[in-house]
Amino acid sequence: MPVDPTPPATSFASDNAAGVLPEVMDALAAANHGAALAYGADDWTGRIERRFSELFGTDVVTALTWGGTGANVVALHTVLRPWDSVICARGSHINVDECGAVERICGAQLVPIDATDGKLIPADIAAQLHVLGDEHHSQPRVVSITQSTENGTLYTAGEIAAIVDVAHAHDLLVHVDGARIANATAALGGDVRSFTTDVGVDMISFGCTKAGAMYGEAVVFLRPELGEPVRFARKQTGQLPSKMRFVAAQIEALLTDGLWLRVAGHANAMAARLATAVAPIAGVDVVRAPHVNSVFARVPPASLQALQNWSMFWEWDPAVTEVRWMTHFDTTVDDVDTFAAGLAAIIERTAP
Amino acid sequence: MPVDPTPPATSFASDNAAGVLPEVMDALAAANHGAALAYGADDWTGRIERRFSELFGTDVVTALTWGGTGANVVALHTVLRPWDSVICARGSHINVDECGAVERICGAQLVPIDATDGKLIPADIAAQLHVLGDEHHSQPRVVSITQSTENGTLYTAGEIAAIVDVAHAHDLLVHVDGARIANATAALGGDVRSFTTDVGVDMISFGCTKAGAMYGEAVVFLRPELGEPVRFARKQTGQLPSKMRFVAAQIEALLTDGLWLRVAGHANAMAARLATAVAPIAGVDVVRAPHVNSVFARVPPASLQALQNWSMFWEWDPAVTEVRWMTHFDTTVDDVDTFAAGLAAIIERTAP
Amino acid sequence: MPVDPTPPATSFASDNAAGVLPEVMDALAAANHGAALAYGADDWTGRIERRFSELFGTDVVTALTWGGTGANVVALHTVLRPWDSVICARGSHINVDECGAVERICGAQLVPIDATDGKLIPADIAAQLHVLGDEHHSQPRVVSITQSTENGTLYTAGEIAAIVDVAHAHDLLVHVDGARIANATAALGGDVRSFTTDVGVDMISFGCTKAGAMYGEAVVFLRPELGEPVRFARKQTGQLPSKMRFVAAQIEALLTDGLWLRVAGHANAMAARLATAVAPIAGVDVVRAPHVNSVFARVPPASLQALQNWSMFWEWDPAVTEVRWMTHFDTTVDDVDTFAAGLAAIIERTAP
Amino acid sequence: MPVDPTPPATSFASDNAAGVLPEVMDALAAANHGAALAYGADDWTGRIERRFSELFGTDVVTALTWGGTGANVVALHTVLRPWDSVICARGSHINVDECGAVERICGAQLVPIDATDGKLIPADIAAQLHVLGDEHHSQPRVVSITQSTENGTLYTAGEIAAIVDVAHAHDLLVHVDGARIANATAALGGDVRSFTTDVGVDMISFGCTKAGAMYGEAVVFLRPELGEPVRFARKQTGQLPSKMRFVAAQIEALLTDGLWLRVAGHANAMAARLATAVAPIAGVDVVRAPHVNSVFARVPPASLQALQNWSMFWEWDPAVTEVRWMTHFDTTVDDVDTFAAGLAAIIERTAP
Repeated sequence: MPVDPTPPATSFASDNAAGVLPEVMDALAAANHGAALAYGADDWTGRIERRFSELFGTDVVTALTWGGTGANVVALHTVLRPWDSVICARGSHINVDECGAVERICGAQLVPIDATDGKLIPADIAAQLHVLGDEHHSQPRVVSITQSTENGTLYTAGEIAAIVDVAHAHDLLVHVDGARIANATAALGGDVRSFTTDVGVDMISFGCTKAGAMYGEAVVFLRPELGEPVRFARKQTGQLPSKMRFVAAQIEALLTDGLWLRVAGHANAMAARLATAVAPIAGVDVVRAPHVNSVFARVPPASLQALQNWSMFWEWDPAVTEVRWMTHFDTTVDDVDTFAAGLAAIIERTAP
Repeated sequence: MPVDPTPPATSFASDNAAGVLPEVMDALAAANHGAALAYGADDWTGRIERRFSELFGTDVVTALTWGGTGANVVALHTVLRPWDSVICARGSHINVDECGAVERICGAQLVPIDATDGKLIPADIAAQLHVLGDEHHSQPRVVSITQSTENGTLYTAGEIAAIVDVAHAHDLLVHVDGARIANATAALGGDVRSFTTDVGVDMISFGCTKAGAMYGEAVVFLRPELGEPVRFARKQTGQLPSKMRFVAAQIEALLTDGLWLRVAGHANAMAARLATAVAPIAGVDVVRAPHVNSVFARVPPASLQALQNWSMFWEWDPAVTEVRWMTHFDTTVDDVDTFAAGLAAIIERTAP
Repeated sequence: MPVDPTPPATSFASDNAAGVLPEVMDALAAANHGAALAYGADDWTGRIERRFSELFGTDVVTALTWGGTGANVVALHTVLRPWDSVICARGSHINVDECGAVERICGAQLVPIDATDGKLIPADIAAQLHVLGDEHHSQPRVVSITQSTENGTLYTAGEIAAIVDVAHAHDLLVHVDGARIANATAALGGDVRSFTTDVGVDMISFGCTKAGAMYGEAVVFLRPELGEPVRFARKQTGQLPSKMRFVAAQIEALLTDGLWLRVAGHANAMAARLATAVAPIAGVDVVRAPHVNSVFARVPPASLQALQNWSMFWEWDPAVTEVRWMTHFDTTVDDVDTFAAGLAAIIERTAP
Repeated sequence: MPVDPTPPATSFASDNAAGVLPEVMDALAAANHGAALAYGADDWTGRIERRFSELFGTDVVTALTWGGTGANVVALHTVLRPWDSVICARGSHINVDECGAVERICGAQLVPIDATDGKLIPADIAAQLHVLGDEHHSQPRVVSITQSTENGTLYTAGEIAAIVDVAHAHDLLVHVDGARIANATAALGGDVRSFTTDVGVDMISFGCTKAGAMYGEAVVFLRPELGEPVRFARKQTGQLPSKMRFVAAQIEALLTDGLWLRVAGHANAMAARLATAVAPIAGVDVVRAPHVNSVFARVPPASLQALQNWSMFWEWDPAVTEVRWMTHFDTTVDDVDTFAAGLAAIIERTAP
């Protein structure tokens, strides 16, 4: 029986497979001194809103939450009326990876749109608006886009501006699921305002866990009046951390000296290196040049199981044996090279 | 203007005001090596179910969650049919401190019972059962009790057994909101099975945060078949931690060498010390000898504001100026003595 | 074996046991000519809002619904934010007779108050308001009272005014569940405005079925701006009748020439006659002189089953063998006298 | 200004625009004698389950409801677990015409499929099943198809059998939204069992209103064990008629001597006549030969407004000026001929 090469030291399964940045661990330790009032009435949380206002260049309302599904639910729950709906890409996390959380908790309908590369276009939204005002139909109220998308693609600032234009013209809001907003920002030049504040985005699920935190995300309302009732929405949905200073301290660490962008940029670079390394492998077809920290590629069906046994990753589209490999802050050059070499060796052995 | 004494180094506002146990911090650091699959497919989480099965002396199903409201919601969401209701004390956390989470997320009705000292009795449950089978009424399916209660009281094992008997006789389940189950267990002699497994409790929200964790709770089903769908209930309610190893590692630390009981016992002892210290103060009326880590006392109305300005705490019942002081793992003897002395000084100055 | 007397021709079980007024049947037949646009875009429905505006002496927004549970849900769903709660009497229909519909559909918490004779008082409401603004608690937004109450009692106009005052002072709304508003209005002198519009009530579930319709109720918003989104709330909750002209035609018949009050007054008179007739029966204890169309009385426990076998009625409070007998538009003097005589005979035979 | 021809005596806007069959009116009058216990404890309702068991050739459980949205909600609410989803055509009534009722009330996710002519095929279902067992995704539990479809098309018995096969193979249920099941049955030869019981359908929303009733629909469970909790699902969703005898009496009239099929067959024939009559009109393009009681046709854009002003109907697809004309039990030959002639005249006058 052939012996597999040594697998890489890290996992390419997900950016959630990474641990926690050392700077974040230090911040957690530093926050662990003495007592602090719970539920956000602490100094760390008190500083966060100012930090996000500075980051986005506008007064914001923020609410720290536990996780990403929670952040999306909190953002939407804050602004939806009971009969409202949310326009989103069919492959969006809120539609396919949250086990029906929005429907269950917000009681709202999602209107999934078939979207090339996970990206909505203005015409998708315009096509849904004829129902506005008609009681037989749930009422589109929010357009939710993911940046970077679940498919590893990016909206340009101009593309988001165009979506915002059609949305705002009909009194809809635009929500950005930014579970990977760090990777997106790094890939787009480092200015998060350019594709959010500057183009009129209304609210953001600002992802921290995939950027190197242990846990915790932030819901950021770029129009503060929208966020006014968010504290009720957060508590009711079970997303109010009690010892909140430890969430705030992590985010503070990420936002200090651009740490969040530095490590996201590294993850992006590792994905680019991986794509370059695997492209020459016979039987591997890289679907698109990586925009952020993921590589989507087709592999030989006969090799799939052996590859996953060796170093687990996600199968994205079984119909065409398309798989996803993800990098993160802790992925090293050596990890990438080891992984690429192993892929080549196993595919050579197993592919017909 | 009179000068207040120096306030205590810690807060008596809540056990959530404490930080994190050093052993827990160490466990977090130890878990932060390399990659681990997300959502519970990691070694730390893999060990937890065994740990809880050992603790409770029976095969259990566990689900780790973010917070306490989430744990209660997950436990109930797993077992409730859409038209079911939950019998609980009027002052229970699920009824008055979760902003309607159970109604919103589970779509279930709570049936709040006026309960002396926060404790249900079998007759309370029996009085609700005439509606069983009648479609006009939501159907009692779960009795939820809190141990120790929001009022700082304890159910004896026998009292819980009696509740379980009437519940099970009518096919209802018994849930224990154990946000402070550590304090309860320590106070009841250290054997958590004695008032759970041994008396037929069906499921528990096993609290870790108030016991010294940074975040994270466990839902434990003592009848594994009940917990079978819990993973769907957890994900849908936004309570599935992605980097779950860090929740599991904390709980592992708490359960190792009885740490959870040792620190809870300390907190309980500090409350007892505080009650003893404040009892002689003129104008202070300790409502009951502390059972766990809280002291409920009436203070002079004229002193209330000055006391809270000095060292913030919760007003429990404004009608009678009843307040709550809580201790935790990090409350020291010096904190207690400083606090009691300050109370005495301020009350003497401000009470008529 | 003793032979029971002939039971009455009608039922004293509920006012829902009655059929339909002949004037309503005529109106249904009259409306059944040719086609009419569905969902309220018909002439009959077009006239209803004007009729209710005249009745209440103010511009209203109305929404016709299928049934009483539906009307209550639609009224509340229109005005509640997701984290709002509803203060109501513990014995109110929304709390105990709708199988958790409000919790399920609106996702809202009910705050049930123990209420003497089914009537809330201002202090009940005031006692709940300390939670306003605190995210840990669902936010009281509506006070729902039933007129006449489930206990067969009446609020005076002054009592409702006092409730409205405390509610409005804290930005809460007042909803009247008027399933028996016809009986209440007839009992209070015939002027429905006196205890609604004139005292500041915000919205009403205006009951028609118990007043002699076949089906159909109206939700009436006395402050039109509140009712603006009601059509979405109604459609989403499955309460939008398609062939709506037939609901509107029935209500039009009821409101024409005071029919609704005339028949409700008759029902009330029949209850009064029944109370007078049964009061002298040994073993029967009339709980209170009837205010509307129900008689609450205690009967000998030993007679209960025989009485119900003879002519079915509701047991209101098993603990004290309190039963409820209801009259309706179709209850005749002969029915009352036959029923009273039969009660006397059976109790004499069966009571110890 | 040109004078429009006289419009038809009836409306072609919807089958809901029709009134009520005389036989149904007679049944309502006949049921209006004396008292009858409410909520289904009456003789009329007592007979209904037997009638449906005979109709479907198997023991069924039935629940009478108010309307069509309600019937769909009740059917689904009875069988869905909280994390379940429903696979349906994108254009299905539950997805686009119920204002988010299923999401709101059941808390369930709909998975809309782009379906040619409104019809799902087995491959659509199979493509969704890879998520079964994975907690990140809502769990497909019901396939809901509409017969006849919203597009006026029909599933053959064989097509439904194939859907049932793939569904049952994975433990999913099949629901038929039969708002127009009468039209479908008449069109398919008159044997309702052939495409329901005989091919394994699990539950049906059996439409009565569009077939000539005033109001009222039936939820029919062909597997009785599935329907066991339906009474709770019905009450909780506000779909329990109080004076239920009047719903049952209407359905009894429809099912007597095949009335429902006779009038549905007539409506179907009128649609066929209309399609034949309008096909030769220049500028009118009949999309498909009518299967049931609707004609879908494209009309000249320049004529649309004038046509609707003359005799209102629904615009089905604005992008291609496709409109829908519906017939019903009360549509006469003269109505059809008058409508067709008017269409021709107005189009001739207005089309370029």
